[in-house]
Amino acid sequence: MTVIDPRPIIAAKRDGQSLSADEMKAFVDGYTGGSFADAPAAAFLMACLLNGLDDAETLALTRAMVESGDTVHLASTRPLVDKHSTGGVADGVTLIFAPLAAALGLSVAKLSGRGLGHTGGTLDKLESIPGLRTDLSVEELARQVETVGCAVAAQSDSLVPADRALYALRDATATVPSIPLIAASVMSKKLAVATDLILLDVKAGSGAFMKSSAQAVELAQTCLSLAVGWGRSALAAVTDMSQPLGDAIGNAIDIAETVEVLGGRRGGRLRDLAVTFAARGLESLNGASHDEAVARAEAALDDGSALERFALMIQAQGGDPRVTQDPWAVLPRAPIVRPLVSDRAGFLVAVAAEDLGLAAVALGAGRIRKGDPIDPAVGIWLRPKIGDPIEAGMLIGEVHARSDAAALEAEASIWRTLTVGPEPVEPPPLVYTWLGGQP
Amino acid sequence: MTVIDPRPIIAAKRDGQSLSADEMKAFVDGYTGGSFADAPAAAFLMACLLNGLDDAETLALTRAMVESGDTVHLASTRPLVDKHSTGGVADGVTLIFAPLAAALGLSVAKLSGRGLGHTGGTLDKLESIPGLRTDLSVEELARQVETVGCAVAAQSDSLVPADRALYALRDATATVPSIPLIAASVMSKKLAVATDLILLDVKAGSGAFMKSSAQAVELAQTCLSLAVGWGRSALAAVTDMSQPLGDAIGNAIDIAETVEVLGGRRGGRLRDLAVTFAARGLESLNGASHDEAVARAEAALDDGSALERFALMIQAQGGDPRVTQDPWAVLPRAPIVRPLVSDRAGFLVAVAAEDLGLAAVALGAGRIRKGDPIDPAVGIWLRPKIGDPIEAGMLIGEVHARSDAAALEAEASIWRTLTVGPEPVEPPPLVYTWLGGQP
Repeated sequence: MTVIDPRPIIAAKRDGQSLSADEMKAFVDGYTGGSFADAPAAAFLMACLLNGLDDAETLALTRAMVESGDTVHLASTRPLVDKHSTGGVADGVTLIFAPLAAALGLSVAKLSGRGLGHTGGTLDKLESIPGLRTDLSVEELARQVETVGCAVAAQSDSLVPADRALYALRDATATVPSIPLIAASVMSKKLAVATDLILLDVKAGSGAFMKSSAQAVELAQTCLSLAVGWGRSALAAVTDMSQPLGDAIGNAIDIAETVEVLGGRRGGRLRDLAVTFAARGLESLNGASHDEAVARAEAALDDGSALERFALMIQAQGGDPRVTQDPWAVLPRAPIVRPLVSDRAGFLVAVAAEDLGLAAVALGAGRIRKGDPIDPAVGIWLRPKIGDPIEAGMLIGEVHARSDAAALEAEASIWRTLTVGPEPVEPPPLVYTWLGGQP
Repeated sequence: MTVIDPRPIIAAKRDGQSLSADEMKAFVDGYTGGSFADAPAAAFLMACLLNGLDDAETLALTRAMVESGDTVHLASTRPLVDKHSTGGVADGVTLIFAPLAAALGLSVAKLSGRGLGHTGGTLDKLESIPGLRTDLSVEELARQVETVGCAVAAQSDSLVPADRALYALRDATATVPSIPLIAASVMSKKLAVATDLILLDVKAGSGAFMKSSAQAVELAQTCLSLAVGWGRSALAAVTDMSQPLGDAIGNAIDIAETVEVLGGRRGGRLRDLAVTFAARGLESLNGASHDEAVARAEAALDDGSALERFALMIQAQGGDPRVTQDPWAVLPRAPIVRPLVSDRAGFLVAVAAEDLGLAAVALGAGRIRKGDPIDPAVGIWLRPKIGDPIEAGMLIGEVHARSDAAALEAEASIWRTLTVGPEPVEPPPLVYTWLGGQP
């Protein structure tokens, strides 16, 4: 290992210069290789955040991050699609999208992360199914993708280790909210896995990291530039996260909701967004028209073929596939299920979605610090969406908790997140815009 | 110790907000108390550097740094004056100023640092006198200031420990060049010692940290604002460091030069600046007129009374006072003394003073890293100043070295730092401006 002095590179970024690809690589390699400590890297990240990174620098950073670890190449006879969300509340699209896309003849090898803060994690949700493994080897992943069409597994430690190190450092040093750094983090993990199409769901609103749709568009464009610079196809949707997307904010209850949507027994925004993503994949990879693609995706939910793929995926990963027929015969259930009954009347005007996510975390459904355990059984089920009428005495959801005290506390928190007004309001759009994306 | 999460404070500075005094104190205390690691502090320092600190924030930072350690209160029957230089090449003013001010009836308790990089250190120079101690206790310091009128001692580890920690971190993270951070570092050490007057020498030019006089004025003003905010009297001169101030760049040779100036046997810019500072102190503390103060300072050099104070100070600190009569009977002398003979003719137009300082470091006279040993005997003696005529064959100085090879290498380096042109040029002013400074 060559030991480098990081200070000239920090000083260049501090003084507003653009860094060369070699400088970016020297910095990333030097940090991940232990050539210098956390502190110079933290100063560098703050300089990047405040002085910005141009497209070439962001691409060089992303490339250096990808090159810090292994890359994954799966042989697949069907087109491989990857889908990623920047994170939100009740955002269960991935778990619906993967079997749905598989039912439509695409392959999905989804490497996922765990929940952190107010956002849930796909792996955590999936692991609430007893026996289910997510620590698949690359060989297991490849085999399952070929036989079932989809797999959702944990990202291995050898994939983009620089991202793990840099993300932990950013979290500790208040250097998270930088669009180039977020884009490099997101895209390094997508670009390390060879696929035919990357679909990005960039969330905007009170439950997302990007609070405004303008910020979300900028992040989406930066991510797409990275894909183009890499020579990869990608499409990005900027979608609404001003309220929970689905109704379930937890883990086991999210699986129950996933089963209902996959079985065609539940409509709404969660189903609609999953259909939209699957249809975009089909259009892009199989040349279907938009209307035809949407119709095929809707049909795969309604005829049970998507749910069947989910059952096969769960079985392949060691879980009990009966969860797709009778979820609560398999899933852990909280001892306290407290109905949420409205004490007010009017229309739902706004939701503090991040705070709602944190109320679920307080119940035990999520984690504040990486590595904390979670309780798969607890969570919040909340039905109304913005614009919906609410009547006094109406059952609007449930709190699943370990104790009465926790349930009562969650109920009080939930009400603080909901604004009920006298006048009806327009629901926010589901998708603000699509951006994309051939190299 | 209260463990604090530093991230809200970092985020506030990152987002351009002004921090309260409580936030600054929580940050400094948290860092020096080990409540969080180097990395968050490094991100914070970069945010301070790039987004700036206003006067109130800089004062709060300085106060928190002073409060991190002990403060010094010396009982003195004469007015106490402190003098500080921001560092330069051949900047031996302090060693002349201290005994000169003592000879004029003032008291000087100077707590000094060691040389780093291209700048020499007063302690290193003084310790080239065999037997001389600089690790004086507060009691020894007080006694010596009362009996001799001056003492130059090492700053103890218990004085402003936050500055030591923050400076080391800034050095490692390319966060040194921030005027508020530099001012807080300089002034925390001055304000931790109770004195009646602080005299600051803020250097500007090729041998200084501030390359332009405009930057130096800004630093001087920031330092003076801190003094005013603290309720202390201070005056600052912005002085020229576009060339070495004196002729000696080393340690023992600087002591020999000090003895010559203190004994009235050497004129020039070094003597003139020491007289200027001593006269300003006398004007400010004893109400003397400017002309009278200058005349008294000149007289104290010419009548031997300043040199006598130096002898008493050296003796009080355990050194051999004969150094003031016959320096080379006492001081370590390098085995190689190579005359510097000019091979060109014209006028000295410019000096790369920082590189000249580094040529002396290469001989062993200084240190690149804190804690490195130095060789007190070696150094560079260079006579011409900007504007002086130079003739081919003229003896312009000497290199004092451990080996012929080192001397030859230094000679080549020295010539690279000197620009000799065909036309005479105006010498730069010695003092650009005085600024100051009653609370």
